[in-house]
Amino acid sequence: MFNEEILNSMSKELEKYFEKDSNLYNASKHLLLAGGKRIRPYLSIMAYNLKKDGLDEIMAPALSVELIHNYTLVHDDIMDNDDERRGKPTVHKVYGEPIAILAGDLLYAKAFEALSTIDDSIKAHKVLKILSKACVEVCEGQTDDMEFETTFPTMEQYVNMISKKTGALIEAPILIGAIMADCTMEETEALYQYSKRIGINFQIQDDILDLIGDQKTIGKPVGSDILSGKKTMMVIHALDTLSNDKKERLLQILGNENAKSEEITEAIGLLSNSIEYAKNLMNESTIEAKEFLKIFDENRRKPLEDIADFIVSRIM
Amino acid sequence: MFNEEILNSMSKELEKYFEKDSNLYNASKHLLLAGGKRIRPYLSIMAYNLKKDGLDEIMAPALSVELIHNYTLVHDDIMDNDDERRGKPTVHKVYGEPIAILAGDLLYAKAFEALSTIDDSIKAHKVLKILSKACVEVCEGQTDDMEFETTFPTMEQYVNMISKKTGALIEAPILIGAIMADCTMEETEALYQYSKRIGINFQIQDDILDLIGDQKTIGKPVGSDILSGKKTMMVIHALDTLSNDKKERLLQILGNENAKSEEITEAIGLLSNSIEYAKNLMNESTIEAKEFLKIFDENRRKPLEDIADFIVSRIM
Repeated sequence: MFNEEILNSMSKELEKYFEKDSNLYNASKHLLLAGGKRIRPYLSIMAYNLKKDGLDEIMAPALSVELIHNYTLVHDDIMDNDDERRGKPTVHKVYGEPIAILAGDLLYAKAFEALSTIDDSIKAHKVLKILSKACVEVCEGQTDDMEFETTFPTMEQYVNMISKKTGALIEAPILIGAIMADCTMEETEALYQYSKRIGINFQIQDDILDLIGDQKTIGKPVGSDILSGKKTMMVIHALDTLSNDKKERLLQILGNENAKSEEITEAIGLLSNSIEYAKNLMNESTIEAKEFLKIFDENRRKPLEDIADFIVSRIM
Repeated sequence: MFNEEILNSMSKELEKYFEKDSNLYNASKHLLLAGGKRIRPYLSIMAYNLKKDGLDEIMAPALSVELIHNYTLVHDDIMDNDDERRGKPTVHKVYGEPIAILAGDLLYAKAFEALSTIDDSIKAHKVLKILSKACVEVCEGQTDDMEFETTFPTMEQYVNMISKKTGALIEAPILIGAIMADCTMEETEALYQYSKRIGINFQIQDDILDLIGDQKTIGKPVGSDILSGKKTMMVIHALDTLSNDKKERLLQILGNENAKSEEITEAIGLLSNSIEYAKNLMNESTIEAKEFLKIFDENRRKPLEDIADFIVSRIM
């Protein structure tokens, strides 16, 4: 699905930002170079390639988003005190918390340093606006996400939260691609509409995989969000639509860290209609997203169409 | 020494970035609006005023450095697990560690958002290069500082560390002032030389105050760096110059968390020649710094001359 050559160029370019051999730099690249889908910079490049060929001009701004994404993961893992990510121990488990905080901060700095290498000042300035705004939104979305652990958000609040927490760093690289490719206002608006939809779908699919994915493939126990009491779209929908007794049963299991595996399975059963609801919503949204791409050349838009489909069908 | 009107404008402008009423925003402004010297944005404005009048154009880029400085303090306090700063409980003590990490991250984002409001794209681009490079250096300097807790740096390594940890965020606002004021290459180089010197002096004076400052004024116990075993310029100089037995005695006390107050006083006594050495070095460096300013108008350079003197004579 993703072009291996492009993925390799990305990794090579990313390595260049962290060539120094020190504890801080090793901590910063620990997660960054351990893999990951690189979907954000890939989206940036594919958006750019709608109008312009090549990678040279788009690579650094595309990678800036990957660097921001990685800083958020490093800091997130500290906040959640998670032990593993991408099959490796988390940065703070290996390097300790102080260096992990600094490693996230360095990734953050390197993202803006990457931006600053854009040749054209007017483009650099536009990209700076997009990326800094996305960084603000990610912080806001993550805080909302944490606060929803102890409250019951409405569906609107939930969608607003994920469009910041997850959507902002899907929208930004696409808009950055549009800026670097000199897209017209109309083209940029179409890409924005596309990005809004696939960004939200990305988070919903993540949450669906937590319920019905394969434990080995997704790299965490199925139902972990139920244990932690996460208010996903499916949970919110179920609480809105289930009969009172089923709803009560779901609330008994949700967030109960000692729930048995039969109870997890029972909760997932209670969510089955809501999973269907979410899947339908994603499918409609994917169709809409691809519709917005129709103003672009048929061959050039193919990768972005494929990514829209990939996001809602991926198994990891 | 500082113009009250300018300080007030700064605080008012800073408030605008954090008007939202949420846990995250309250945590972000907890320290930011609790005071602080605002020396970094002030330097930026005074450098700008060497060539141009007014505040409008320089305010946002000047404040971007203050925002970065505050993010480093919030994250630092987490790393050091400090309870108080500026006479108030630290952000993580009030809001918990996860929100404090995010509050630092939001201040970071707001700094680059502030930059993005510069009207002139070419200037915005130049300022972006300066600020992102400074952010990288701060992370590197902070890591070195932590690593020096368990090693013995040479004087060169120490000066290199403080010119990153502290100097980078003194140099950046001055160079940003130069960019915004359209300084020539020669003028920018002069400001760079000035900034290098006062940045290093700033940290040395901080370390001197820890030894011979007034506990109430500096807001922490005198000799706290001796307890924590910090390798300041004075310590490095003393270890290089003291007789073997005095050196041994100093090493017995340095970093001994249970050292008695008489021992702290004894260690400060052992450092007295080194304090004089550092003061002399700072005085020479201040003279040099002010010498570099001589290419600017006599009246306009006065505030920067005063700040150079203030940095080495301040008592807090």
